[in-house]
Amino acid sequence: MKIALLGHGTVGRGVDNIIAHHVPQVEVKRILELPKFCTEPRMTPNFDDIVNDPEIELVVECMGGLEPAHTFICRAMDAGKSVVTSNKAVVAEFFAEFAQKSVSNNVGFFLEASVGGGIPWIASIAKVRRIDEVSSFSGIMNGTTNYIIDSMAKEDLDFDVALGRAQELGYAERDPSADIDGIDVRNKTIISASVAFDVACTKDLPVTGIRTMTKQDMIMFNQNGRQVKLLGRGVQRDGRYAVAVEPVALSAHSMEAAVPSNFNLVSLEGTTIGDLKFYGQGAGSLSTGNAIVQDVIDCANGIRPQFDFSRGLKYDPTLLTSSYVFRTTAEGPSDATLYGRGAWVVPHLTAVEARALFEDVLKQDPTAFMAALSRED
Amino acid sequence: MKIALLGHGTVGRGVDNIIAHHVPQVEVKRILELPKFCTEPRMTPNFDDIVNDPEIELVVECMGGLEPAHTFICRAMDAGKSVVTSNKAVVAEFFAEFAQKSVSNNVGFFLEASVGGGIPWIASIAKVRRIDEVSSFSGIMNGTTNYIIDSMAKEDLDFDVALGRAQELGYAERDPSADIDGIDVRNKTIISASVAFDVACTKDLPVTGIRTMTKQDMIMFNQNGRQVKLLGRGVQRDGRYAVAVEPVALSAHSMEAAVPSNFNLVSLEGTTIGDLKFYGQGAGSLSTGNAIVQDVIDCANGIRPQFDFSRGLKYDPTLLTSSYVFRTTAEGPSDATLYGRGAWVVPHLTAVEARALFEDVLKQDPTAFMAALSRED
Repeated sequence: MKIALLGHGTVGRGVDNIIAHHVPQVEVKRILELPKFCTEPRMTPNFDDIVNDPEIELVVECMGGLEPAHTFICRAMDAGKSVVTSNKAVVAEFFAEFAQKSVSNNVGFFLEASVGGGIPWIASIAKVRRIDEVSSFSGIMNGTTNYIIDSMAKEDLDFDVALGRAQELGYAERDPSADIDGIDVRNKTIISASVAFDVACTKDLPVTGIRTMTKQDMIMFNQNGRQVKLLGRGVQRDGRYAVAVEPVALSAHSMEAAVPSNFNLVSLEGTTIGDLKFYGQGAGSLSTGNAIVQDVIDCANGIRPQFDFSRGLKYDPTLLTSSYVFRTTAEGPSDATLYGRGAWVVPHLTAVEARALFEDVLKQDPTAFMAALSRED
Repeated sequence: MKIALLGHGTVGRGVDNIIAHHVPQVEVKRILELPKFCTEPRMTPNFDDIVNDPEIELVVECMGGLEPAHTFICRAMDAGKSVVTSNKAVVAEFFAEFAQKSVSNNVGFFLEASVGGGIPWIASIAKVRRIDEVSSFSGIMNGTTNYIIDSMAKEDLDFDVALGRAQELGYAERDPSADIDGIDVRNKTIISASVAFDVACTKDLPVTGIRTMTKQDMIMFNQNGRQVKLLGRGVQRDGRYAVAVEPVALSAHSMEAAVPSNFNLVSLEGTTIGDLKFYGQGAGSLSTGNAIVQDVIDCANGIRPQFDFSRGLKYDPTLLTSSYVFRTTAEGPSDATLYGRGAWVVPHLTAVEARALFEDVLKQDPTAFMAALSRED
């Protein structure tokens, strides 16, 4: 099978390299690159050379960003080519359009590398769905924030020091907002919900990050037998679904609490299979490249994943409720009770209500922190 | 696709049921049963009715035991039929023969349900191997012993009380030897090593269970920041491999230490993918039935797993070395040092040497307990 790569950065080069050494049945025929980086005959700065080449059956998009990635993915599928992408931003924004094009053009749309790096998460959801409905999923989907939390917990670091170390190690960007404000997890949660529930998941989910988390917050939760992790979560029931991204204070004995460094742990619950959890490197060029090549091999083996979001699941925030702890100098509502020093807890809020309350609190106290309390059975 | 079930016990009925409700492309045409249980037209007590039926493309063996399961699997493959089995004992004993027959008859041999229940472990190893070598694997592969250990740790129970409770809950057999002496894990380790390393794995691996573990042993390891789990492990390097089954004292902060109740956690390390871990129900009719049906669907989709053990990996126990703790009244060798009350530790033993030393110790002190110390980086 002949394929084309869009982009030849770290991930693209990794994919090129793995295919050359390990996948003899696949040939990288063309590579889209900027004119100044076109250093070998396979490279072209012109997408037309790829989309108009009938020999190319599969286009691997590893450019990142919304445009021109979105346009190139659509044009490739309209030209009858399957697409592999690792670009979570473009999938979260345009999944409904890509899903429709995968069906109408009868091509495969592969996105394993967009969530959970090298963890076979998307393929596992799809496999479980051959038999079960997925009733819920949840996960540590961002390695950077897990590294920050883990360093704060194990080495007693302040947030800013842990963030600085993550930046030194290349885990966090110079502008870390996408990680610490939960935007990256939001994109991965949208994609996971779309695959798990067959729904064009809303982009208007409640999203709270860990930007204001302090060492004292961690100590307070630890004293209550809990460890905070930033989770993306989704549930579905009776034709309705809900999703959220927020810090969750989990049992210190949970599997999630034990996830070290920049690793990811993603979980699902299926109707007959019960709980399944998957752990691995959530990012990095090797694991992302590996996930892309797994998709390429599946495509070479004739597999053509398609997505159909026509079942019309309704968004219903009441499916996702918790008690929420707010550490703040602001005053709580009338049903708030004391949780710890300078912190109060409100029972039975939806994630949407909790986010709205947190936004009010932040107006009075921009240093405030909020976390959901997981139910401990 | 038309298939036959060998056996209609709990698992067989579950498979029948899941296929009827969720897999319209598959029909269970015949079911092998004892004459007295043949209560419907699909059932027959005669295997010839199945093996001679050219419409039946796949035989699902869920009888258990070595014979006649072994003979029936061979006859089905020789008749050009693919085979799905959940029978770890028969696979561990005859994998080399089954592997050879899968290749020579060009049929699929599916064994997902034989290890890790509903965890997609065998399929994940096979997928990783499309790109990577698996350099090592390890795992909590027996839910019964994990339940016993977890109950001892969390509820402060004695071994016998925890075992009794596991028996009440149906997790442990009336004769629990296969679980607590590590035989079940031995079979699963042999199968995992065979798939991960492409080797007809030796049955002469060192096997130690948890039969003699006491609450005091757990406390001693806890005081050293460790939690004991019964692990199956394998490593390969430079054309050689080693495997072992033994209690391992892991960091109390490890993912393995956090595995609750009767769950399993299996891990592998691939050359480019790094660490992957998979968690779920390791046993039970629903999860085992689910794993069998996943294999059936793969077969209906044209997938035909085959195994080729001809690369001739050599068994080399020096690949698997640890420090080992012995809690015993017997005296240690000259390089033993104190580990805790009534316990000494010996550095740098192979698993085979440790097992030999433990057998000597048991002759003097049948209540002795041994555990490997995991390396903590």
